[in-house]
Amino acid sequence: MTNYKIYGDPQSGNCYKIQLLLGFLHTDYQWASIDILAGETETDDFKAKNPNAKIPVLQIGEMQYLWESNAILHYLAEGSPFLPTDQYAHAQVLQWQFFEQYSHEPYIATARFIQLYLGLPEERQAEYQGKQAGGYKALDVMEQQLAQSRYFIGEQPTIADISLYAYTHVADEGGFDLTPYTQIQRWFADIEALPGYVPMGKSSLTE
Amino acid sequence: MTNYKIYGDPQSGNCYKIQLLLGFLHTDYQWASIDILAGETETDDFKAKNPNAKIPVLQIGEMQYLWESNAILHYLAEGSPFLPTDQYAHAQVLQWQFFEQYSHEPYIATARFIQLYLGLPEERQAEYQGKQAGGYKALDVMEQQLAQSRYFIGEQPTIADISLYAYTHVADEGGFDLTPYTQIQRWFADIEALPGYVPMGKSSLTE
Repeated sequence: MTNYKIYGDPQSGNCYKIQLLLGFLHTDYQWASIDILAGETETDDFKAKNPNAKIPVLQIGEMQYLWESNAILHYLAEGSPFLPTDQYAHAQVLQWQFFEQYSHEPYIATARFIQLYLGLPEERQAEYQGKQAGGYKALDVMEQQLAQSRYFIGEQPTIADISLYAYTHVADEGGFDLTPYTQIQRWFADIEALPGYVPMGKSSLTE
Repeated sequence: MTNYKIYGDPQSGNCYKIQLLLGFLHTDYQWASIDILAGETETDDFKAKNPNAKIPVLQIGEMQYLWESNAILHYLAEGSPFLPTDQYAHAQVLQWQFFEQYSHEPYIATARFIQLYLGLPEERQAEYQGKQAGGYKALDVMEQQLAQSRYFIGEQPTIADISLYAYTHVADEGGFDLTPYTQIQRWFADIEALPGYVPMGKSSLTE
């Protein structure tokens, strides 16, 4: 009997983050598919779990809910090697996760959503094009850090890497060309070689 | 001799968060004013501190830098009552801080920036109007939580309250009417009565 249930969409990078960490931790979980395009995050039942009406949501036991992908990663990674306990390293993990949610996801994940989920409709072309510069800026900042250290915080993978890997490794689905980003590609290979790695969209255990 | 130096702008809510926490903790710091409109975050010197070219940046001692306001709050609050150690409460602090950066700040702080810093120029009117719905949605989620608990995480203030207070208490400067939000106003008064509270824009110790 598993203690965790994830409400999510396997094509969502924010949901995949949780699946990827649980793969690395070899931890079982239940999965409940939520279709955002069908409005399933807007029901009263779902909003009782997350009043902000977004996936993923983690259910812990019978009664506790937690939302925001990076907060869920912290909860699940506590006590594991994926969350350093050193005060500065711990804060650097958060630094990169807040960077991901503010300076990376709104560009790269949103461009991907418009292209992959919505099929790049005419009325969102301008918004899509407007996401490219911010996305490339975020990739530049990542490339610079990964030229200095194997992972974002030193030589060992942390949940900061998981947060940034989720949407970066599918950035081409948002129109981003990763060819010049050789450090990012090297880092992809390092993450994909870790024991317990699961690919995106294929890791749900129970529906 | 203080160990901390903040690079920031006293009118920036993201910078004020740090000043407010350090006020509550009665901790001294140095202050270096950075003028974002004059391009001072885009210099090579500044980007050596934060490659993402944003304020605030915390300098710790001589050599260590930390960026992203909410990561800085975690670093400084560790071991204080403003950061609960219980695993679930700790993750809930992060949940509300990631909510703040993804679902609150890009609407309320950006609308305020367009109105207060830029003077609501004609070419950004449409963007400004587009921020209103998302901002009110975030305020609704906050009001609902504050009807259930005194602070965001139970009965004691945490850095989640500091993160959300920073831009919410000046949301009128972005065109948001807080009159119907009685729980949010009650919460403002609770925060403003805490020992060590400092108002926005008035707390820099040394320039």
